[in-house]
Amino acid sequence: MSHNTFGKMLRLTTWGESHGEAIGCVLDGCPPNIEISLSQIQKYLDKRKPGQSKFTTQRKEDDIVEILSGTIRNGEDKFITTGTPISLIIKNKDQRSKDYNDITDKYRPGHADFTYAKKYGLREHRGGGRSSARETAMRVAGGAIARKIIPEIKIRAALIQMGPNKINRENWDWNLIDNNPFFCPDKDAIPIWQNYLEKIRKDGDSTGAIIEVVAENVPIGLGEPIYGKLDQEIAAAMMSINAVKAVEIGAGFKTAEMNGSENADEIIIDNNNIKFLSNNAGGILGGISTGQDIIARFAVKPTSSILKKVRTIDSENNNTDIITKGRHDPCVGIRAVPIGEAMMALVLADHYLRNRGQIG
Amino acid sequence: MSHNTFGKMLRLTTWGESHGEAIGCVLDGCPPNIEISLSQIQKYLDKRKPGQSKFTTQRKEDDIVEILSGTIRNGEDKFITTGTPISLIIKNKDQRSKDYNDITDKYRPGHADFTYAKKYGLREHRGGGRSSARETAMRVAGGAIARKIIPEIKIRAALIQMGPNKINRENWDWNLIDNNPFFCPDKDAIPIWQNYLEKIRKDGDSTGAIIEVVAENVPIGLGEPIYGKLDQEIAAAMMSINAVKAVEIGAGFKTAEMNGSENADEIIIDNNNIKFLSNNAGGILGGISTGQDIIARFAVKPTSSILKKVRTIDSENNNTDIITKGRHDPCVGIRAVPIGEAMMALVLADHYLRNRGQIG
Amino acid sequence: MSHNTFGKMLRLTTWGESHGEAIGCVLDGCPPNIEISLSQIQKYLDKRKPGQSKFTTQRKEDDIVEILSGTIRNGEDKFITTGTPISLIIKNKDQRSKDYNDITDKYRPGHADFTYAKKYGLREHRGGGRSSARETAMRVAGGAIARKIIPEIKIRAALIQMGPNKINRENWDWNLIDNNPFFCPDKDAIPIWQNYLEKIRKDGDSTGAIIEVVAENVPIGLGEPIYGKLDQEIAAAMMSINAVKAVEIGAGFKTAEMNGSENADEIIIDNNNIKFLSNNAGGILGGISTGQDIIARFAVKPTSSILKKVRTIDSENNNTDIITKGRHDPCVGIRAVPIGEAMMALVLADHYLRNRGQIG
Amino acid sequence: MSHNTFGKMLRLTTWGESHGEAIGCVLDGCPPNIEISLSQIQKYLDKRKPGQSKFTTQRKEDDIVEILSGTIRNGEDKFITTGTPISLIIKNKDQRSKDYNDITDKYRPGHADFTYAKKYGLREHRGGGRSSARETAMRVAGGAIARKIIPEIKIRAALIQMGPNKINRENWDWNLIDNNPFFCPDKDAIPIWQNYLEKIRKDGDSTGAIIEVVAENVPIGLGEPIYGKLDQEIAAAMMSINAVKAVEIGAGFKTAEMNGSENADEIIIDNNNIKFLSNNAGGILGGISTGQDIIARFAVKPTSSILKKVRTIDSENNNTDIITKGRHDPCVGIRAVPIGEAMMALVLADHYLRNRGQIG
Repeated sequence: MSHNTFGKMLRLTTWGESHGEAIGCVLDGCPPNIEISLSQIQKYLDKRKPGQSKFTTQRKEDDIVEILSGTIRNGEDKFITTGTPISLIIKNKDQRSKDYNDITDKYRPGHADFTYAKKYGLREHRGGGRSSARETAMRVAGGAIARKIIPEIKIRAALIQMGPNKINRENWDWNLIDNNPFFCPDKDAIPIWQNYLEKIRKDGDSTGAIIEVVAENVPIGLGEPIYGKLDQEIAAAMMSINAVKAVEIGAGFKTAEMNGSENADEIIIDNNNIKFLSNNAGGILGGISTGQDIIARFAVKPTSSILKKVRTIDSENNNTDIITKGRHDPCVGIRAVPIGEAMMALVLADHYLRNRGQIG
Repeated sequence: MSHNTFGKMLRLTTWGESHGEAIGCVLDGCPPNIEISLSQIQKYLDKRKPGQSKFTTQRKEDDIVEILSGTIRNGEDKFITTGTPISLIIKNKDQRSKDYNDITDKYRPGHADFTYAKKYGLREHRGGGRSSARETAMRVAGGAIARKIIPEIKIRAALIQMGPNKINRENWDWNLIDNNPFFCPDKDAIPIWQNYLEKIRKDGDSTGAIIEVVAENVPIGLGEPIYGKLDQEIAAAMMSINAVKAVEIGAGFKTAEMNGSENADEIIIDNNNIKFLSNNAGGILGGISTGQDIIARFAVKPTSSILKKVRTIDSENNNTDIITKGRHDPCVGIRAVPIGEAMMALVLADHYLRNRGQIG
Repeated sequence: MSHNTFGKMLRLTTWGESHGEAIGCVLDGCPPNIEISLSQIQKYLDKRKPGQSKFTTQRKEDDIVEILSGTIRNGEDKFITTGTPISLIIKNKDQRSKDYNDITDKYRPGHADFTYAKKYGLREHRGGGRSSARETAMRVAGGAIARKIIPEIKIRAALIQMGPNKINRENWDWNLIDNNPFFCPDKDAIPIWQNYLEKIRKDGDSTGAIIEVVAENVPIGLGEPIYGKLDQEIAAAMMSINAVKAVEIGAGFKTAEMNGSENADEIIIDNNNIKFLSNNAGGILGGISTGQDIIARFAVKPTSSILKKVRTIDSENNNTDIITKGRHDPCVGIRAVPIGEAMMALVLADHYLRNRGQIG
Repeated sequence: MSHNTFGKMLRLTTWGESHGEAIGCVLDGCPPNIEISLSQIQKYLDKRKPGQSKFTTQRKEDDIVEILSGTIRNGEDKFITTGTPISLIIKNKDQRSKDYNDITDKYRPGHADFTYAKKYGLREHRGGGRSSARETAMRVAGGAIARKIIPEIKIRAALIQMGPNKINRENWDWNLIDNNPFFCPDKDAIPIWQNYLEKIRKDGDSTGAIIEVVAENVPIGLGEPIYGKLDQEIAAAMMSINAVKAVEIGAGFKTAEMNGSENADEIIIDNNNIKFLSNNAGGILGGISTGQDIIARFAVKPTSSILKKVRTIDSENNNTDIITKGRHDPCVGIRAVPIGEAMMALVLADHYLRNRGQIG
């Protein structure tokens, strides 16, 4: 019953509201004697940080993370974990809430306003309160530490579709992703997305996106049947990210159209190594990692806060309409890229710890 | 760390191997004073039962479920739950394992053979052992009891795509689903699927499918932010089903292509009732049910056991090839329909119990 | 929220009522490739079995345990675990319930009748239903398997006090415990207890007892601060046994009377080995095992079912009185000896698995 | 696997080391719309605060608690919970660590130094790091909020034995406990304890104690069989407190000496109310609350840090001896009184939430 906790052996508990004093997390279960640095955590936080370009919200957050416990300082920017809970905090600085005054009593379609108000009997309307994607900053921070637990596994993600615009997978270049505002791996797609998003933004509208997360060099044997399957927990991880409506592993929904003979990932011995001739399974069979790359994809719906007028009701059940002003991302999926990476890191580190001493 | 347990307040623990003496489950957390009947549980088991038509495996299983604890008998076919763990058992009758002799040492591509062998250091090759979909019979049995905990919620599922063949949603007729071997809701699709599957079967091949699960009359407020979101747990539930590679909620992957203004599910007061003008969210906002229908879709990959020869290796790392004889479903997705319903029932009943005393 | 499940990595889920068709358990999380035998499990069950002497209930139970899943048979009485859930069952044979007819509507003081009826709104009066100590047979069976996970640790228990009669610790002889009906380690105490219990039994009364459980050869480092402390989980384990009202570790309640200088377990290097000069801590410091013997003690209250008349009420809130006929142990603490051992084995094996790959 | 988390529905996760920058906790699962005040939380913290009299450590800690999330401010000292995680922090102010320099490499007998060093491979020697009782400040803060969830239940505790000196229960006066430095309910015991402790302190020694916690006005039906028993979880709660070595419920260890007829808590209808004629069960039968007062008792061993020289080893396995300077309580059991109350509040509030909607 851990509503604000993710993981089994490595447990991330997050707290804080978007417009409160601070947000933070407790990462419990991290082994001792792991070296971490604030600048490395900050590097991942910066990827997710708003205000990076005109394509992300102009809310200015420095998002400076501090470590309050669980480590011993071992140099300027070096900390050694001690095996005790790691407490991280980010103080909120730019809590401009006047933009939200107008919407106080109206439910924003697509937002959690309506369901939170009905469930909890009160409403924290400023910026979504706890339901704001600001919570995901702590996932990114936790994920940065999780990576240190499994340093041999390489986890990267890219935006592969923005609105109706897909990348050409033939062009995939990982080196590109940190050099464009979209984490796009296809140089041809970048200018197209740029124009597309510019138009969306000017229209006061927003658009959806698809993110692909890839984990390389995963050991064989991570994942627990029957209800602790690796793909099950990756699906849960990705679906827990704000605005995510779909997730797939490997060939995903495409497998529905395939024949068994097409879908079979044949296995051969090649130069004394086990080699799979394809990866429709996305690196997971029977819920357990095969040693191939793990591939997960998830869809992020368009930002619900838009400048276009939509019909809604207020808390007194009156019909009305709403334009959601404020500082919003036209494609919130962009900032979901580092979050998807972080969730993959948290799942894999958790499963690594669950299997420690058992698999190679 | 509950590898063989699903749920938090309502916990289904399953046990048993496909070719062992029996399979069973313990359903813990069911409230007292609920009336259940074996014939009702059996009805759902029969939907999943193999050997129903030439389109499902010819393995004959009567799948007769027995109740060993947790109830007081209250009539011929009536049992009253007592609040103690409900133990169900199905004795295996038709454990024909000679068909599997040939494959003893070969890994079947797409199967869990390879990963189980690597993880556990031994291999239960007869019919997949624990990784066999036979385990899902207990999910169906557990789901049948879960439905009784939330009798006001109606949960149904249908096959909406077989291989490349989609239904026409305009034709959707729930009355059809129990009257054709595919749980198909579109009368026009039935003959097409029949021909398609006949051909696949004759080819010794298999095909994938997509299942849609719909829950109607769901109360507002089920689901727990941030890491107990209703959609997160539905995703985990569906992804835990054998051969499932993708899951989506509401408009799912389509939301990636949408604008925010299209995607917004506008809200109005209509005749004093709250009414949403669309349901792209699939009945869930911020991880909490809105009161709309909950809609989940998942893809089942084609059966991995096929009569076509594919390349593989044996346990000694020799190159070889394999034809998987035995009695296999050409479209295992068909039998996933009642399993998807059961998982939805388990998730919703679990969340209902987690919220008992809190929401209307 | 695992009301009928004990443990984290090694999870014992029990089910069944005392007068139902069967009782059973699912032991999940047992590693693969461990050899177990039914006769060994049976040996521990036989220690707990009723009807062994006139000092235990005359209810005849063969308590024959069967394995339904989780193993591969490897010889007459040999089973190899596979890493999947182990399902054990004991069919109830001697469910004589007519003795209970009289008590149907009366609450038996000291029994769970009253609280179960109030909590669940119904009453399973035959032999206590789920609250019967019959459930503990499955703990003993599970504990027998748990021992195999940690074969180097030796776990034994003894009755050290019956009513007001204590053993003389100077006489402690482990070899005695399996050779008297009381698991008594002091030859001088045996005849005294025999006379005492005979008198109690003739009086239709019952008496309490204290059990001491000792685990030898425990590795250093088992136990997790802050809320997964080894002593905390041992306390929970023992207190979960029926009729237990107190538990202590090491010097226990005596530490309240001690000075710090007396209580200090001094440490020396003796012959290159770390040696503690005393063991007031009972082998646990800061919740973590020190490598010394772990010592736990628990008190079992006198059997509540007695032939002496006591005042009570019935379910209609009428004053009445009750004599609890049936077949009851005059000192239920005797049969708690193998149960205490089993719980210690379950806790230590669980912690061993939680630490696998981390400690020596 | 929640090593630093206590509770199921109401979950307290604590973090922080005694001599780090801060300590804190996240209380997850608190219902919305509960009014709390910092001054009330502070009141309980002040009871536990060191430096209150010469009988507690002279370490000066203001222990000023701050709320970082989970509430809406509703007045000077009023906060309304929102149902989201409540993050509390206490900044450490007086981290004088020079006193600890001498002990760097020596293991203090009775402390967690030895086991932490062996388990984690490193040592946080300043003040015990995570194993310090400073962690319990957050339990007290969390317990103060837990009380607000169950306002009808009254939870109080008292010190009933210091070293060999017991109170006279006939003198019990709850009004006394907040008016003496020992939380002593017996006016005659106060001067005796004062002299006793003064002598102990001058000797550089320490002494143990017994605390009794009483919860009044508990509803019938809290507690979950079989492994979520109320007494089991109270035992775990108390045993998780630093230096606790024993716990008992109701008559506890005394039940071992009793006959069944003495031990039976007879029930009568008195003036239309159910009334128990005694409370040997301590308010719990079959793991479920009876509606009587819940009574738990626990023993706290003497403070391990003493000014008397004891034998020990250093981290290089050399024989040595140690005098633990610093500022230590001669009877650490005194400050365990508010901690015991807090743990009882956390357990009862947790069980209350687990049963919400089910019992009266």
